[in-house]
Amino acid sequence: MPHSYRYPRAALTVDCVIFGYDTEDLKVLLIQRDSPPFEGRWALPGGFVDVGEPLEEAARRELKEETGVEKVYLEQLYTFGDDVKRDPRERVVSVAYYALAKLSDHRVQAATDARNAAWFQVADAPSLAFDHDQVLEMALTRLKGKVRYQPIGFELLPPKFTLTQLQRLYETLLEASLDKRNFRKKLLAMGLLEELDEIEQDVAHRAARLYRFDKRAYRDLQKRGLHFEL
Amino acid sequence: MPHSYRYPRAALTVDCVIFGYDTEDLKVLLIQRDSPPFEGRWALPGGFVDVGEPLEEAARRELKEETGVEKVYLEQLYTFGDDVKRDPRERVVSVAYYALAKLSDHRVQAATDARNAAWFQVADAPSLAFDHDQVLEMALTRLKGKVRYQPIGFELLPPKFTLTQLQRLYETLLEASLDKRNFRKKLLAMGLLEELDEIEQDVAHRAARLYRFDKRAYRDLQKRGLHFEL
Repeated sequence: MPHSYRYPRAALTVDCVIFGYDTEDLKVLLIQRDSPPFEGRWALPGGFVDVGEPLEEAARRELKEETGVEKVYLEQLYTFGDDVKRDPRERVVSVAYYALAKLSDHRVQAATDARNAAWFQVADAPSLAFDHDQVLEMALTRLKGKVRYQPIGFELLPPKFTLTQLQRLYETLLEASLDKRNFRKKLLAMGLLEELDEIEQDVAHRAARLYRFDKRAYRDLQKRGLHFEL
Repeated sequence: MPHSYRYPRAALTVDCVIFGYDTEDLKVLLIQRDSPPFEGRWALPGGFVDVGEPLEEAARRELKEETGVEKVYLEQLYTFGDDVKRDPRERVVSVAYYALAKLSDHRVQAATDARNAAWFQVADAPSLAFDHDQVLEMALTRLKGKVRYQPIGFELLPPKFTLTQLQRLYETLLEASLDKRNFRKKLLAMGLLEELDEIEQDVAHRAARLYRFDKRAYRDLQKRGLHFEL
């Protein structure tokens, strides 16, 4: 088939920002590069898109190949291609995806193309290869924006949780500390939480009441949106 | 310089969804294609990215070349590349941008690569070439989302406006009719509007009070965000 565009072409890559939540911290999944450029440096999982491969499929393939992680809900973040020198080899445009997953659901294992793969605390992440610091920064900003406009926690918390666990989740994602009374008042006012007739088991401190999400209210609020004012 | 990726590559394009508001309608800027594929069909302005050209610059260049329109605030919308057959010629990945502009600020003129360029009412837009119907749909959804989370109108309304004009703007962008009393109550509660000691001039109906945006409150609300519940 004749090509529609007869001039030199940029190379196309995908990169994945996978956040993992583990009740304490927000982590990010990184790989250590095993070839130049930036050999030995940490980077986001990703790689070149095959000419016949859908973009999101390429992102899933690279993620699995490099880290063993699969079955995450990827959302497209942004396409990085304004800085034509972002890859020292040649012009490379990269479509970035991001996801927020429960850390305990995803064991990592380095595979092809990567020397090593590991979860890092976002706050302690090393300086990354290429423009990946910028990509990570944008993903964090997007995540925080999402937290303010959409209910979260359904997949990240256990089915029954305490209000303290829920507050810790919000505080971790927003990297901010929240006033306890205010937080509870707002969350309860959303009509999202169902108070259970159960309390925590086997805890050293005073056992707290357990809650779960009202699935219907949760889905409804996902559609309508909200505004969580800090 | 040796290429880092030695395999066939997708072609890369940019497409622009430019919305224009004219106090009555929401319009979209389209061009008529002057060559195959889809010769004669209407499409979004756009075209191939040069290998050394930043993405957003390519979008601005194509927009100007095909329609004469320039100086709009482009935001990246989404990169279309999951359907590998979206262009019948070969694999083409397209980075889409969108903008909302005041119609009267932008005269269109068809130029290179386009037979014709014109503003269409969004509601009456013809069926478009490629997957551009989908691109337009996504831009509309994004625009409506934005309206609910960010103050709008600063660039779209005259410096002094009536509450009716402001309501019409929201109704047009949201494609919904809003309850007058409720709308006014909410808007005034945001602290965004400054009531002026002036009324409309030269109108046949009873002259209404004029308002303007409080610039500081407007910028502050842009940062903090809001939630405009319909």
